[in-house]
Amino acid sequence: MPGNTFGSLFRVTTFGESHGPALGCILDGCPPNIPLEPNDIQQELDRRKPGQSAIVTQRKEKDAVQILSGVFEGKTTGSPITLLIPNEDQKPKDYDHLEHAFRPSHADYTWQVKYGRRDHRGGGRASARETAARVAAGAIAKKLLSSQNIHIQAFVSQVGHLSLTQAYHQLDLSSTESNEVRCPDPILAAQMIDLIKTVRKEGDTVGGIVAAVIKGCPPGLGEPVFDKLHADLGKAMLSINAAKGFEYGSGFEGVAMRGSQHNDRFLPGNLPIQTQTNHDGGIQGGISNGMDIYFRVAFKPVATLLRPQESVDAQGNRVIVPGKGRHDPCVVPRAVPIVEAMAALVLADHWLRLRTLG
Amino acid sequence: MPGNTFGSLFRVTTFGESHGPALGCILDGCPPNIPLEPNDIQQELDRRKPGQSAIVTQRKEKDAVQILSGVFEGKTTGSPITLLIPNEDQKPKDYDHLEHAFRPSHADYTWQVKYGRRDHRGGGRASARETAARVAAGAIAKKLLSSQNIHIQAFVSQVGHLSLTQAYHQLDLSSTESNEVRCPDPILAAQMIDLIKTVRKEGDTVGGIVAAVIKGCPPGLGEPVFDKLHADLGKAMLSINAAKGFEYGSGFEGVAMRGSQHNDRFLPGNLPIQTQTNHDGGIQGGISNGMDIYFRVAFKPVATLLRPQESVDAQGNRVIVPGKGRHDPCVVPRAVPIVEAMAALVLADHWLRLRTLG
Amino acid sequence: MPGNTFGSLFRVTTFGESHGPALGCILDGCPPNIPLEPNDIQQELDRRKPGQSAIVTQRKEKDAVQILSGVFEGKTTGSPITLLIPNEDQKPKDYDHLEHAFRPSHADYTWQVKYGRRDHRGGGRASARETAARVAAGAIAKKLLSSQNIHIQAFVSQVGHLSLTQAYHQLDLSSTESNEVRCPDPILAAQMIDLIKTVRKEGDTVGGIVAAVIKGCPPGLGEPVFDKLHADLGKAMLSINAAKGFEYGSGFEGVAMRGSQHNDRFLPGNLPIQTQTNHDGGIQGGISNGMDIYFRVAFKPVATLLRPQESVDAQGNRVIVPGKGRHDPCVVPRAVPIVEAMAALVLADHWLRLRTLG
Amino acid sequence: MPGNTFGSLFRVTTFGESHGPALGCILDGCPPNIPLEPNDIQQELDRRKPGQSAIVTQRKEKDAVQILSGVFEGKTTGSPITLLIPNEDQKPKDYDHLEHAFRPSHADYTWQVKYGRRDHRGGGRASARETAARVAAGAIAKKLLSSQNIHIQAFVSQVGHLSLTQAYHQLDLSSTESNEVRCPDPILAAQMIDLIKTVRKEGDTVGGIVAAVIKGCPPGLGEPVFDKLHADLGKAMLSINAAKGFEYGSGFEGVAMRGSQHNDRFLPGNLPIQTQTNHDGGIQGGISNGMDIYFRVAFKPVATLLRPQESVDAQGNRVIVPGKGRHDPCVVPRAVPIVEAMAALVLADHWLRLRTLG
Repeated sequence: MPGNTFGSLFRVTTFGESHGPALGCILDGCPPNIPLEPNDIQQELDRRKPGQSAIVTQRKEKDAVQILSGVFEGKTTGSPITLLIPNEDQKPKDYDHLEHAFRPSHADYTWQVKYGRRDHRGGGRASARETAARVAAGAIAKKLLSSQNIHIQAFVSQVGHLSLTQAYHQLDLSSTESNEVRCPDPILAAQMIDLIKTVRKEGDTVGGIVAAVIKGCPPGLGEPVFDKLHADLGKAMLSINAAKGFEYGSGFEGVAMRGSQHNDRFLPGNLPIQTQTNHDGGIQGGISNGMDIYFRVAFKPVATLLRPQESVDAQGNRVIVPGKGRHDPCVVPRAVPIVEAMAALVLADHWLRLRTLG
Repeated sequence: MPGNTFGSLFRVTTFGESHGPALGCILDGCPPNIPLEPNDIQQELDRRKPGQSAIVTQRKEKDAVQILSGVFEGKTTGSPITLLIPNEDQKPKDYDHLEHAFRPSHADYTWQVKYGRRDHRGGGRASARETAARVAAGAIAKKLLSSQNIHIQAFVSQVGHLSLTQAYHQLDLSSTESNEVRCPDPILAAQMIDLIKTVRKEGDTVGGIVAAVIKGCPPGLGEPVFDKLHADLGKAMLSINAAKGFEYGSGFEGVAMRGSQHNDRFLPGNLPIQTQTNHDGGIQGGISNGMDIYFRVAFKPVATLLRPQESVDAQGNRVIVPGKGRHDPCVVPRAVPIVEAMAALVLADHWLRLRTLG
Repeated sequence: MPGNTFGSLFRVTTFGESHGPALGCILDGCPPNIPLEPNDIQQELDRRKPGQSAIVTQRKEKDAVQILSGVFEGKTTGSPITLLIPNEDQKPKDYDHLEHAFRPSHADYTWQVKYGRRDHRGGGRASARETAARVAAGAIAKKLLSSQNIHIQAFVSQVGHLSLTQAYHQLDLSSTESNEVRCPDPILAAQMIDLIKTVRKEGDTVGGIVAAVIKGCPPGLGEPVFDKLHADLGKAMLSINAAKGFEYGSGFEGVAMRGSQHNDRFLPGNLPIQTQTNHDGGIQGGISNGMDIYFRVAFKPVATLLRPQESVDAQGNRVIVPGKGRHDPCVVPRAVPIVEAMAALVLADHWLRLRTLG
Repeated sequence: MPGNTFGSLFRVTTFGESHGPALGCILDGCPPNIPLEPNDIQQELDRRKPGQSAIVTQRKEKDAVQILSGVFEGKTTGSPITLLIPNEDQKPKDYDHLEHAFRPSHADYTWQVKYGRRDHRGGGRASARETAARVAAGAIAKKLLSSQNIHIQAFVSQVGHLSLTQAYHQLDLSSTESNEVRCPDPILAAQMIDLIKTVRKEGDTVGGIVAAVIKGCPPGLGEPVFDKLHADLGKAMLSINAAKGFEYGSGFEGVAMRGSQHNDRFLPGNLPIQTQTNHDGGIQGGISNGMDIYFRVAFKPVATLLRPQESVDAQGNRVIVPGKGRHDPCVVPRAVPIVEAMAALVLADHWLRLRTLG
């Protein structure tokens, strides 16, 4: 079973390679009669697109989206929505040196083994450029969710060793987009930007963490027993290029707590029921409980370096991968809209799944 | 779309409630002609079953498995394999006090909201007892994988604040099963057991971490772009009761590294290609690369306490949930075979998916 | 992808072999709070069970169903419903002669080639006994549908060359169950019964046709473009053992008509809109239009004969398959509840799918 | 679950409306390293395209296909293959008169009820123009199958009352494409063409039957119990616009036979095993047995007429649908490549499914 489709009822299939003519997606299962303009999608793509600031890759792509189907007179019809994003700044020649070399910690070797060949130009389909299609589909999911007053906000919480110390509710998340690194603490943001610039000057890269908060999610989303809401969120996040870990609510830190500390006490009083604390991260037994959902995603340092690296070719011979190619010194600023998009796809899918209960 | 099925080609659907007549599963897609005896399954169930030691729940269940279909003259036939595990030590009356109360940080409230009613006896289908069916199915996946020399070993790496400091290859994993807590470091294991006993005496519970290593996995398992091997492993692990986080390879710690440190250099020389380090955790671009796969799963402290807790009923009125019921003071010792089972289901599924490439 | 599961949102997976310990199914996706007693299922199984009359197989099976999960205090819970039907009258020794012979026009040869081995006892999983599990699941679908005033009625319209000449609305379908052959025309029914008895005396078998009418189906069921309602009905019917053809509405006869005759004119007047004729069989563009849905299913003569037949073994050597074994001389009387069950599963699935549109 | 996807392992999702900017599909799951040129697809599209002869619709569409992804240096890569077919001869204004009228026996009314609105221009997504995307995807399936020496040939066997009387093996199928109606009997073909021209002159339409033969299919394709090969073929065919019935092998005529006549005797001798007759149509127990597979598909007369027709609007008021619009007077000549494409998609899917058995 091929792996280019995500979701069960709100279902996106992405296609396209980094240096092919275009990439895009089909979104099937979107309910009819949702207002949708190209700009709803474009503004999310603009948050992800390359070249948007000094700390991201300088590949020039407008990432201008076209709607090919499924929208009629400004509204969705219930038919598959096809989104097309032509590639413009392809420089496939830039990748000739990679035809016979496997970049370290990239997908070059594994794709070669799996498929017997690969499109070596910029990673082909394994390129993070594929996530543009996810952001485009996620923009439609966001439209659906915002009509239900469900809102998702992601932000950078760590770059290298520089980490937010505040809990998310102590931060002004509305300021996230006011700096290039998308960290809601402006002082830490400035330090993060400096770190990324320093790392890039060294021809190196650095990892980071993206956190996300979902507000307004009603109770009931998530399916026992395998399709728990956090399990689907986890899969969604881990499917993003360079992701290495996922935790929600108290996460890995929660393991050192006692149950008597960790349990979230239900508060007597008005319905809907609230909890005093929220270590469960808004999800109990895999189903949303109406509190804020929050989670964190770890991203490794980007594998492409501006330094020569030792490697091998398909025969196991030693080769040098030269330090060139356009890439991000740190993935997390551009990962913010991707994390939001994937979260939106998960929630839209589970929102439709809940509907089947009547 | 219902959420009781896991896997695409090697596909298990579980059923049953904690205090119903039985639980079990159908495993569909298992290739024919694999030798399979009930004891292959029983020995895995015995590792998970309640009452096996002093530090786990004292519910008495033999968890004796019956094979109802799909096996003929000691071998699989290619037809659905049905496994049945009758419940024996049901004490539904023990749960009458929960008919109108929501236990804190349990699934009681969310199931009630989602379905309009619930089987309140011991958590019904939300009970971790459901994982017996997963372990049973996973035992068959293990048979398939071991015929391919793929082996999975999980172990407890942390209980509360007590954590292994060694890397997995510095440990003698074969000693994991020699102590009740399933930690391969015998000194730390003794401390963990003491901690669990202390916590239980206090009527409290504690969290922990299960780590796992997969050896012998050939390169090529995992599907771009959404069904990356680690994304499916992550979903599998996060779907286990009480799981709060998942990381593989360098995980959350890797974010503070530089790319030049983190990248795993391919070693020139004999095929199959090896890497010098393994921060990628045996998975590159979502596809196994032939190195060891390793990951860690965080489990929160068990929500059931031997203390009275304040809570509410469906109308929001204050109630007291009394401190009774049989439960584990710490989930991780019994989670070890569950983590292995879910990992086996993921790998068996991707092994079949790889086969479709010819 | 294994083929033992039917449906997308209302999804049944069947298991079990003709001469194994039991057969049954898991039904996942059934909405909660539907009243369900074992007898709701048993009465449908009794319509299908062997030994019920002089013109069907004399295998003795009570087909007594057990509900193992998913029902609590007389109502569905939204969790998987597991139904178990123990086999009682197994006579596996009766099939020893088939271990090395392929019965003509049975599944013996194809299963042997596909799986490298087979459970030869009575056809194993290829036996029509598997349809008991479908009838059991279909009984639950019928409960769901009847709560929406959707009703399905199947009947025998042809046995051998003996065929109903009336349209379904000229018949009193309520009399279908009043005779052993389940044909609503009592005079033709008597002829059909005579024919089946004659054929059996000759050690032979005969084919037939089952027709079905669905009343009360609201407009809107069916999904463009591949999952058209009649396409899913067709697949459901063709998946029944011995089925050879499916047609709905005007069917094969409609091809000789002109469009001006065939088109169903919409009648002005009160909503919901009605059509003057119903050549479309209640389905337009793959979606129900609120008119009666009707279709017909062709069944070949049963392949098991009470006569010796020439055949071969796996090496291609000539063998004689002796004329023994319990079987039906004509499959259609017992196919009536199976056709209804499969139609109910299709409609329940599409009814849930329609719900996702809100 | 949306219905625009077909297949499980070899999986196509189509998109696009009759008068939108384009239609096309994503084919996911195609194995890597299959040679593929645009012309492989174009030649099949040319067989289906409008305006190709005097007896089909005069809409002018080049149906020129573009490959947007999944092919690199003339071979498939294993990544999703995206095919785009721009619409050129859109005349949406021609359909203004249909904005408030439901054409009889079209999908207008049912889509309006289901989705609350519809793209009324030429049927929007319900238009048979959607099948261009199926033919394009099917061309790739044919490439895969022909590399395995599996070949599919469809032909027109009936138009109106004019029907072939020969069995398929008595015909020279290689002459099918030598006449406009695609009937392999040239004398009958001439009569069919005359009939279609006459019917068109009368402003009317007529139905027909397409038959198909699959040669070279190895034994083993098809999955018990629901995904029988003929059940999936049946669904595939019934999902084509205007299809009303499906039968394989002896089909509806077989019901009047005795088992002793109908059973296909296995012939002693060389392997692979052959049968003397082939009433089973190459499929036993839902699995191919190595003999020719053959089946027939009934198509109703096209609903669009060149005559005014009475109908209603959404409020139930009487309206007149004028007799205009470009359409086919008989669908079967252009259905021939569509039937082949859908059959190819089914076989390619089951061929991959068989591979998972090893």
